Parts: sequence; structure tokens; C-alpha cells
Amino acid sequence: MEIRITRTRNPKKKPDENSLVFGHDFTDHMFIMNYTQGEGWHDPRVEPYGPLQLDPSTMVFHYAQETFEGLKAYKTDSGDIQLFRAKDNAARLNQSNERMCIPTLDEEDVIQAIATLVKVDQDWIPKAEGTSLYIRPFVIATDPFVGVKASSTYLFMIILSPVGAYYKEGISPVKIYVEDKYVRAVPGGIGFAKTGGNYAASLMAQVEAGKKGYSQVLWLDGIERKYVEEVGTSNVFCRVGNKIYTPPLQGSILSGITRDSAIKLLRSWDIEVIEERFTIEQLFEWHRKGELQEVFATGTAAVISPIGALSWQDNEITINNNEIGQLSQRLYNSITKIQNGQLEDSFSWITSI
Amino acid sequence: MEIRITRTRNPKKKPDENSLVFGHDFTDHMFIMNYTQGEGWHDPRVEPYGPLQLDPSTMVFHYAQETFEGLKAYKTDSGDIQLFRAKDNAARLNQSNERMCIPTLDEEDVIQAIATLVKVDQDWIPKAEGTSLYIRPFVIATDPFVGVKASSTYLFMIILSPVGAYYKEGISPVKIYVEDKYVRAVPGGIGFAKTGGNYAASLMAQVEAGKKGYSQVLWLDGIERKYVEEVGTSNVFCRVGNKIYTPPLQGSILSGITRDSAIKLLRSWDIEVIEERFTIEQLFEWHRKGELQEVFATGTAAVISPIGALSWQDNEITINNNEIGQLSQRLYNSITKIQNGQLEDSFSWITSI
Ligand SMILES: Cc1ncc(COP(=O)(O)O)c(C=O)c1O
Ligand SMILES: Cc1ncc(COP(=O)(O)O)c(C=O)c1O
Repeated sequence: MEIRITRTRNPKKKPDENSLVFGHDFTDHMFIMNYTQGEGWHDPRVEPYGPLQLDPSTMVFHYAQETFEGLKAYKTDSGDIQLFRAKDNAARLNQSNERMCIPTLDEEDVIQAIATLVKVDQDWIPKAEGTSLYIRPFVIATDPFVGVKASSTYLFMIILSPVGAYYKEGISPVKIYVEDKYVRAVPGGIGFAKTGGNYAASLMAQVEAGKKGYSQVLWLDGIERKYVEEVGTSNVFCRVGNKIYTPPLQGSILSGITRDSAIKLLRSWDIEVIEERFTIEQLFEWHRKGELQEVFATGTAAVISPIGALSWQDNEITINNNEIGQLSQRLYNSITKIQNGQLEDSFSWITSI
Repeated sequence: MEIRITRTRNPKKKPDENSLVFGHDFTDHMFIMNYTQGEGWHDPRVEPYGPLQLDPSTMVFHYAQETFEGLKAYKTDSGDIQLFRAKDNAARLNQSNERMCIPTLDEEDVIQAIATLVKVDQDWIPKAEGTSLYIRPFVIATDPFVGVKASSTYLFMIILSPVGAYYKEGISPVKIYVEDKYVRAVPGGIGFAKTGGNYAASLMAQVEAGKKGYSQVLWLDGIERKYVEEVGTSNVFCRVGNKIYTPPLQGSILSGITRDSAIKLLRSWDIEVIEERFTIEQLFEWHRKGELQEVFATGTAAVISPIGALSWQDNEITINNNEIGQLSQRLYNSITKIQNGQLEDSFSWITSI
């Protein structure tokens, strides 16, 4: 794919690396490519970062036909630029696109587009410990038409945002509310796709949990409201004795790439990982019996988030003394070191650009 | 509310009234109002219809925090302009807003905004039999921010589209596919809200049904996949003997305004309407016993759509000889005549402007 590059003549002032806010600052350039029925994806280009001009009837405003991804680029100590698991993100974008009736993209092209844009804006990759460049590829439906159908035109775009260490004072455990009123997704729905509707649907639970003092919700399955599914925008793991449990991918939860990295690392350490459904009652039972050693969430933004407290129907349990567990810490260290080049990439997760 | 009006200096050519396509043409003006945290909704204005300038990080593109409504304005034979059930649409917009964590609007302001815009563009209201001006109010989240939270800024807009008679050669029954693979919504989710995510989630089923030769899908409940819920973007009714059955509003289906109009009219004609759950098996059983006289869908776009055939798990049934039923026709006539001023508005459904 031949990418046309137009460089900005007005570079922005870069934010201070030590006070980066997640998702708030964007770099000097963006990637755009158009889709038109008949013609396919065409006109890939890097342009100065700037506003889109869209008709108010544009379908994405009304019917949310949209998908996105989230991944990160890191600068190693020797100055190399590394993408973490970019191929998996490109593949997942296409899974989301298929579910949302959006034409799929060539996955090699997606990676080339990311690499090209990151190289153009490489001075924006922060270097301080724990920082990185967050990459947001997304697709939106752009037909100027009011009526429910799949659009015949789309934009695929990539924007970049320098982000700070998620936990400014080191990793600290979070308090989670077990949601049993609102539902995020069910099998047959769109829960496994990274598409706006899932996130819009989750806001109310998040706001209500926030008011009660919890940083996120743990979602239960939408059918019986008893099986553990996800935590906010991350996947969830429990350590019970020396075994690790995590909910399986059955259509209602996102196939997290950090989840997969954690499973592969744990298994490489000879730790048993069980991908089977378990209920919230079971989780509380493990705790009652003193077997629940660690609970943690996995996601691109924070990598590993230890869960220090869980509240379900007025019962709150404290997990591992509200401290980060040994395996959570080991996973965090290993993943972040592979990401920033301090540890060997034995799983071929890195794309060097 | 004081609405600032800026008129276009370049009025567009109006489309031919006899070949209007639904949702394709938009009038000369649009309504906009901004929301900013702290300040609330402010700066209501009518402006020349034109594109929005939005940062690529704008939240609506990523997280689909958006709501909308759909209603119609009609020109009566005497030249008056009538809105149909505008108060109910304004109220439903707020129900959707609440579920999606969007600040609610003053419902009087919404009606005033609609009335003002429709008056400015009143020459766009088509006069031919069965035509009307479709009104699309919508709200989108506009924070330039990548991260899952409720936005702190929004746009409320209204756009207008002249629309033709839905059925060009008179009402004709449609063929519907009973969907048992994909799920639209479950209780605890967002099915009752008019928000983009529900429509994006529905596309795949619609596309697959279309390929099989059906014009829409009938959704079953997402839990047991047996209770009848909705048909595409409309509510559904069955006439069994002299009784009418329609699924109750229990959180997963939209509270259709045409549904409510149909129920009120039917009851005023002393016809029993039963708002209770029934299974698709029951529906097929009614048909087998020769009791299923009519099935029809209700919605703003087509008002009443008779359903002539239903396909479920490889069994296709023909309903009422694939002809429009007597009650379907009576409802269609009554509702459309109230809408265009040919029948008395005994339920106070009309706002004259
Ligand atoms: C709903 C949801 N679950 C889980 C995850 C974790 O996925 P990943 O590890 O690929 O970031 C995310 C996203 O980032 C998410 O949005
Ligand atoms: C999902 C859905 N159900 C039902 C309806 C019918 O509602 P109304 O009669 O208010 O148009 C609509 C919308 O128009 C809809 O989008």
C-alpha cells in the first residue's frame, strides 16, 4: 500500500511527559483511508491532525456503526520503536468489522498504516518509565443517510496519544462493584466486538458504581446474572491456590490481548490456567474458604490491575490484604518489560518499526 | 427559550415530491444547541444546513454515546402544519438520554425547537398523498477524549427530511424472518432506549435476512429466545380471533409511539388488547389452529406494515392470504387521517404549529 504523507507546518507543543493524562493529547498527524462501495478501501494518507467535516445525517451519529482498537508503541532504551501485538489488534479489528457489517481491512495494511503514522510522529513517544504512545485505529460509517442499513462509505482512521504510567505511585489495587442490575452483553449480541454500543451501554453502571465509591464494575452474564464476565474494559482473572481461573470467550466478552498474553506467560511458567465459567458465588466461596489469593484485571491501558476489594449485594470482601499479589506483579513486570524491550520477546509479540 | 435564526442565502433545489427516498434529502436549515458541564444546554439556534467540524477523537465516534428520535410533520388540506405526538417523542428522548448518561433536555424546549425549525423550512413539507416531513432530533457526545466515561459536552441537533409514501403502490404485506441466532437486547441492557448501539447491533441479522429474501427480522427475547419482541424497527401485533396481542414493555423493546397510538385506537373501538408475553411457538400454534387473522408492525416510518409471511426454523407460514387485514387497514387509515388532519384529533395527539 502506498501511503501519501502530508506533514504539518504547525507542530504542536508536546505535553510534559510527567503529567500525561490518558487520551487527552493527540499528536501532529493522523492516518485516514476511505471506503466506497465498488471501489473498496482507497486513498491511504497521513495528514496533519485536524477536524473531520461530516454532514449531520452521517450514519455514525445515528446508528453507531463503528469499531475501534487500542494498542501501544514503546521506545526502548536503545531508541527503537516497538509495537506490542499489533497483528492481534488488526485481526480483532476485522472480527469487530465483520460483526458490525463493516468491510474488513487488509491486516498488513493496518499494521503498515500504524507503523507509518507512528514513525512520522515518533518524537511524540514519551520516554519516561511507564509511558507509551497509545494508538487508536477506528472505523466510522459515513453515508449521509437516515435509515437503518449498513453504510456504503466508511473512514478508517488512526490517531495517537502519548499516555502516562497508569498508576502514578506504582500499581495500587482497585475497588470493584459487582453489577447485578445492568447488563453489558449476551451471546448472540455484540459483546465480543470492540464497537461503540458496548461502551455506551456500560456508562450507567460505571457512573452508579463511581457514586458508591468503586472505580469500576464487574459484569455478570446477562442471562442468569451469576457468571463472572469482565471488569470494566478489562478481562478478569482469579488465583485460587495455585490455579488461575478466567472466564472463557463465548461471545459476550472481549477477547482481550492482554488476557491472552497473561495466559501464555502463566502457562509458560507451568501455572495451570482454567478457561471455564465460574459464578460470583463461587468466587465469594473461594474467598470464604481462604483460597482466593489474587484477583486481577488485564487490559492495554493499565496492563494488570490488582483488585483489592469486591462488593456484591452488600457484601464486600478484601482480597490479598488489598495488596498486589505475587503473580499479578510478576505478570505486570514481564509484560511491561517485553513491551519496552527489557525482556526477550520469546512469543514474537513485538513488531519493531 | 430564545432561538437565534440565521437563514441560508443558498436555498437548495427541492426534490420531486413523487420520487422521494426515505432519509436521503435534507432541508435548508438545522437546529443546534450545545451542552457544556456547568453551563447546561445553551445557545439554541437555527442555522443553514451544513457539515459539523469534529475532532477525530470526538467521543461519539468511539463510544457511541448518542440518542435520537423520529417523528413527522404533516401539512393539512387547509395548509396547517401538524406535528404528531411530539410531546411523546420529547419524553422518550429524555428516557433514552437518562439511560445513556446524557443530560436531559427541557421537553418544552425540544418541542419549541422542532416547531421553530419546521416553520423555517415549511416549504419543504411535501403535500402529495402519504408524504410528510420526517424530523430527526439527536444528541451526540462531543468531548475530544479517548477513554470510557460520560462526555461533558454534547450537541443536540434536529434535521429534517421530506419523505414519500412508504408503500408506493399502496400498503403491501412484507415477509419477515424470525431471528434465533442474533440477539438485539435483554432486560438490564439498552433495548428500550433509542440509541445507536441497538441499531448497529441489528445490522447483521438484517443483512442475512435480506440475503434470504426477507425484508426484516422478528426479534426474539435474548434470554430464552422464544418470546416475540419486535420486528426490525417497529413493534408487533397479532390478531387472534377478535383479540389483539402485543409484547409488553419490559426493558428490552422500544416503547413505540405508533404502538401506543394503535393500542389506544383499538381500545376505543372496544377491541381487547392484551400486552402480555407470547412465544413464537404460540404464534405458530395460533396459525395452525386457524386463529391467527392478522400480524402487523407499527412504526413512524411506515405507520402500519402488514406481515404476510413469517419464517421460523425453516417453517414459513402465510398470514391472511398475504393480504392486508381489516384491522391493520382500519388502523392505518385512522392514524394517517389524524396525522394529516382529515380525522378529528380526539386523543390530543396533534401539536399545530
Ligand atoms: C470490554 C473490554 N474488555 C477487555 C479489554 C481488554 O482488552 P485488551 O487486553 O486487548 O486491551 C478491553 C479493552 O481494551 C475492553 O474494552
Ligand atoms: C427498535 C424500534 N422499535 C420500534 C419502533 C417504533 O417506534 P415508533 O412507533 O415510535 O416509531 C422504532 C422506531 O421507530 C424502533 O427503532
